[in-house]
Amino acid sequence: MLELDKLFNPGTVAVVGATPKEGKVGNTILKNLVASGTGMLSIYAVNPKYDRIQGLKCYPSLNEIDVKGDIDLAVIAIPASGVPEVLEQCGERGIKNVVVISAGFKEAGREGAVLESELVKLARRYKLNLVGPNCLGIINTYANLNATFGKTTPDRGSIAFLSQSGAFALAVIDWAKAARVGFSKIVSLGNKAVLDECHFLEYLAKDPDTAVITMYLEDVSEGSRFMSVASEASRTKPVVVMKSGVTEAGAKAASSHTGSIAGSVEAYRAAFAQSGVVEAASIQELFDFSLSLSRIRSIKGGIAIVTNSGGPGVMAADAIEGSGLELATFERGTMEKLHALRLANSYNPVDVRGDATTDEFGTALNIVAEDGHVGAIIAILSPTAPIEFDKAGDYVVAINAKKPVVPVFMGGETVMSAVEALKKRGIANYFDPVRAVESLRAVRDYEERHERVSEPPPHFSVDAERVREQIRHKPGFELLKAYGIPVPAYGKAETPDEALEIADRIGYPVAMKIISPDIIHKTDVGCVKLNVNRGKVKESFFEIMRRGEKYTTARRIEGVLVQQMVEGGKEVIIGMKRDRHFGPLLMFGLGGIYVEVFRDVSFRIAPLSMSDAKEMIRDVRAYRILHGVRGEPMSDIDSLVNVLLRFSQLCVEFPEILEADLNPIKVFEHGKGCYVVDFKMISSD
Amino acid sequence: MLELDKLFNPGTVAVVGATPKEGKVGNTILKNLVASGTGMLSIYAVNPKYDRIQGLKCYPSLNEIDVKGDIDLAVIAIPASGVPEVLEQCGERGIKNVVVISAGFKEAGREGAVLESELVKLARRYKLNLVGPNCLGIINTYANLNATFGKTTPDRGSIAFLSQSGAFALAVIDWAKAARVGFSKIVSLGNKAVLDECHFLEYLAKDPDTAVITMYLEDVSEGSRFMSVASEASRTKPVVVMKSGVTEAGAKAASSHTGSIAGSVEAYRAAFAQSGVVEAASIQELFDFSLSLSRIRSIKGGIAIVTNSGGPGVMAADAIEGSGLELATFERGTMEKLHALRLANSYNPVDVRGDATTDEFGTALNIVAEDGHVGAIIAILSPTAPIEFDKAGDYVVAINAKKPVVPVFMGGETVMSAVEALKKRGIANYFDPVRAVESLRAVRDYEERHERVSEPPPHFSVDAERVREQIRHKPGFELLKAYGIPVPAYGKAETPDEALEIADRIGYPVAMKIISPDIIHKTDVGCVKLNVNRGKVKESFFEIMRRGEKYTTARRIEGVLVQQMVEGGKEVIIGMKRDRHFGPLLMFGLGGIYVEVFRDVSFRIAPLSMSDAKEMIRDVRAYRILHGVRGEPMSDIDSLVNVLLRFSQLCVEFPEILEADLNPIKVFEHGKGCYVVDFKMISSD
Repeated sequence: MLELDKLFNPGTVAVVGATPKEGKVGNTILKNLVASGTGMLSIYAVNPKYDRIQGLKCYPSLNEIDVKGDIDLAVIAIPASGVPEVLEQCGERGIKNVVVISAGFKEAGREGAVLESELVKLARRYKLNLVGPNCLGIINTYANLNATFGKTTPDRGSIAFLSQSGAFALAVIDWAKAARVGFSKIVSLGNKAVLDECHFLEYLAKDPDTAVITMYLEDVSEGSRFMSVASEASRTKPVVVMKSGVTEAGAKAASSHTGSIAGSVEAYRAAFAQSGVVEAASIQELFDFSLSLSRIRSIKGGIAIVTNSGGPGVMAADAIEGSGLELATFERGTMEKLHALRLANSYNPVDVRGDATTDEFGTALNIVAEDGHVGAIIAILSPTAPIEFDKAGDYVVAINAKKPVVPVFMGGETVMSAVEALKKRGIANYFDPVRAVESLRAVRDYEERHERVSEPPPHFSVDAERVREQIRHKPGFELLKAYGIPVPAYGKAETPDEALEIADRIGYPVAMKIISPDIIHKTDVGCVKLNVNRGKVKESFFEIMRRGEKYTTARRIEGVLVQQMVEGGKEVIIGMKRDRHFGPLLMFGLGGIYVEVFRDVSFRIAPLSMSDAKEMIRDVRAYRILHGVRGEPMSDIDSLVNVLLRFSQLCVEFPEILEADLNPIKVFEHGKGCYVVDFKMISSD
Repeated sequence: MLELDKLFNPGTVAVVGATPKEGKVGNTILKNLVASGTGMLSIYAVNPKYDRIQGLKCYPSLNEIDVKGDIDLAVIAIPASGVPEVLEQCGERGIKNVVVISAGFKEAGREGAVLESELVKLARRYKLNLVGPNCLGIINTYANLNATFGKTTPDRGSIAFLSQSGAFALAVIDWAKAARVGFSKIVSLGNKAVLDECHFLEYLAKDPDTAVITMYLEDVSEGSRFMSVASEASRTKPVVVMKSGVTEAGAKAASSHTGSIAGSVEAYRAAFAQSGVVEAASIQELFDFSLSLSRIRSIKGGIAIVTNSGGPGVMAADAIEGSGLELATFERGTMEKLHALRLANSYNPVDVRGDATTDEFGTALNIVAEDGHVGAIIAILSPTAPIEFDKAGDYVVAINAKKPVVPVFMGGETVMSAVEALKKRGIANYFDPVRAVESLRAVRDYEERHERVSEPPPHFSVDAERVREQIRHKPGFELLKAYGIPVPAYGKAETPDEALEIADRIGYPVAMKIISPDIIHKTDVGCVKLNVNRGKVKESFFEIMRRGEKYTTARRIEGVLVQQMVEGGKEVIIGMKRDRHFGPLLMFGLGGIYVEVFRDVSFRIAPLSMSDAKEMIRDVRAYRILHGVRGEPMSDIDSLVNVLLRFSQLCVEFPEILEADLNPIKVFEHGKGCYVVDFKMISSD
């Protein structure tokens, strides 16, 4: 692990490319460093053109800074072509931390990419912690460090924000200042030539100033490393991600934007879920979720609503029902205490009436907070005449110390000072009850996801050697058998007599299919015979061969597969596509219409844990069909879990398998197992 | 239709219950009227306890106001029990418009409900336009009328806002003032004892100051009237509704709140869609949608994105892809012009680069606006150094005159003055590109929905008389036949000889089923025989009777149904449930698993138009199965449209049918029709 402590907490900073010209990046960075680092930070300006800038002595180059001791951080804002030379100087001068602001690298085309690979080489040689290039810089509010060219320094707070888009980071900093959202650290990742999201995730997971790690990503540098680092981080604190470039149109734009090629939505979604990462679908969600997770980590019970106006209470109840959270059912004592207050209703949502005073509202909040079934409270107030919002805010703060309260103070001018006071305590107010509910839903997401991430995948003893032999020339059922995946009994016949011999061994009836690399849709060309009895084996052999020969040359026909007939059962599909970022992406679904029409499938990245495999099966809507509808017996789900886990191991152990389909798998009732009836795969080479 | 002109544009207003006591409702209303109506409005205070209030002469009662001419409006804010007497006075004094602020009516329990029915009687007798009771009042910004007890008067704007929750209206007024959202009129509907949402919809549809009608509803007073009035209104201008109480939990709260019982989600959703109403799921959507619809009515083409930062551009592209809108594909000329500008990319999203100036951004906007494929533009700007937001705002305003532009100026302080300037032009800015896209999606929703509402339902000549005879005692296939709905040939046999005779007439094989009101699940108790050949008819008759008699008394067995066997085909379901608000709610879906597991069904309120019926079928995800997957022939969809339309007419003409299921209907390939194989119904009486 890299040591990033001095990167975020430097005592001395050099700005290479500092300039007195207003509006230039090298000017703004120097100003920001001077303004934010008052007294704490030694700053050196570097530019051969000037002697002094902003009252500081200016050095012609890093080499010529004639001070004793280390320089902890160099911020480089000069034209791209000059950056390698400066990195050399960093290496020689023993500067370990570098932020390369300069653009003109990978994002700018082939030449830039070559230049960027030079940066990577130099960073390796000198063991540099290099941020960027093509980035806005970094901020550590707790070290009074603003090494960016943003217009303002954000307030202190507990959210660490990583952004793969510098312009977006710029916008967020500007917005956050006005919206009074605080940050612990901000990192503009740029092209991620050396340091990427994983390095910062590792560091921030241990950062005591950071309660939530919030990221805007366009891709991840290394999928499996991301999953392991994010899993580890999310065990300690929430990680919230907005990933763009999810759709086809979006992905097109992303690839032209930073030269990164976005992976498939499904792979990212599965990877995030399996790593405990909470996903946000919009900027609003990104910060709503981060703010709620910065103070609420878990909801132990249902949601209570206390409101002075029925309408908005109903809106919140609707949203809770739709979100998968539960509306709390109060304990008897709570109902009695509320009833004694003579409210509009003493069940949930609690309506204290439009003419209630602030104290009546506060009393109701207190009663509800004492209820053991209540995990969090949404406190809704319309600006009626008797309500004093500042006082209501005090109630929220006090009760929030016992149980999470999300305030929905609805209004403008009237609620403003109360809302500001709440913000200072880290409590976000929402005008819209639906947003308040969504912010709690994110907490539930985090809770459920991060509890799951610790389970290791099981390991089966398999005959990997057999697979290694087979995989190049004859992939097929042998491969599955070697991994203990159940397939029907079968044999390969090159003559009618062999066919009969194999069929006698398997038992009747049998299925017979041509074996030829040229014939994909075997059934369509009459090269499959089902339910073949003993008397028909030879005849079928001849017919299949004859039809096959019409279709391709005899040389490309390897024989006829004689296979145990597998009848009845329900059809499921297990598939794998190797994702360029995350590796084997497994898919599960019920056969035919469910996959084709309803796209009713679930995804996970291999290796799967036992609970991953179970969840994958339960996640499809058609699960009820396996579980048994209309009094049908339950299917043998355990046998499918077994196939998923073994197939997962196969895909992990054989990276040369690029895509594979176990389709159909026929699953029988509980205890009777399943069989993979057909298998297709594409391998590299 | 009621004449509400004087209600919203009174020359003289009396406030009954005016008081000098600060903080009281009767005090605030008087103040608001005086403050808003400066010089324009004659105001009379009424209260027997005072001689003068706020400098105005105070009258002991309405009767004693000794001025000539009409009083246009009375606002009543006295205890509930005194309201009927005041209404009498209104009637006698010829005051036609009354706003009853007072609470303590239907929402307060049984006694209140009795009192409310007195108001209704008096309003009828004197032909009063009565708003409320239990409401906040009304506002007409263009007539300088604020007859509410809110804390502030909103700005003028083009949104008319109706709210069934007074507290919510209060919150919206307060918020809107700070958010600078303007209104034409605001109406707090209260208990809707006399005037309801429909009266105001009719009035506002013709109101030249109103561009969008925005409503918060907890129920509708009369479903079919709502549908016809809303359809009419939405033909002229957008109607946006947030309906609460959609979920079970929500509905519970709603019923205790205003005494209204919320209807089912599906019925409301169908009714809104069929009436051209745009639905909002949150307060944020309600106003985002209203604001965009107040200036954009239609999007003729795809969406273009112009941005100075790749990340947010990708976010917008993702959201467009997810929303059902299309990303515009540029004309060749556009690409060439953009290419000449040397941008990061000249296709959509257009990335003008982070170092672009405001003019470069404006130029790109102009080029894109000229493109014939572009229907609307999302203009995204991060606060980079070269961007001047005020100037960028001017570009947006100018280009918006030619083609709708939604600005996404991302920032806080930096963008503030530009955002305020845009607001004054009625153009809302979004920090989040996803919200900008959603606001355009609402425009598309409106476009699609309101284009559809004009089509009348078809009318079939049917044998309604036969249904009328049948419906009481023998509902069944006869009823469907009378409406021209295809059913298999059948007959009712009371003896084995009759059974044979009927079967001979139908042709073999036949199906045979017991007829008994006591036996619901006929198959389960062995009272159904399928594929019966001639030789087995009598034997089957005896067996069915014998089994039926085990199950119920012979007296309750009416005989055996002998029916044409309908084999093959795909199974679909058509059903109807009479919704308490909207009447016959029709359902369509594919049989079995699709309905039970996937809930893959569509709903419409009868009567259906031809396109309603077609859409209902296309709306289910399993439509592809009817359309034919894997080379299967297409099912006879026209025959299903025919059944839907005829069944719709049946449900409309026979309100005594409360619920009905045509399940299964077997549909064959195109041209071969469909048959309703089984039919169940529940009727009143």
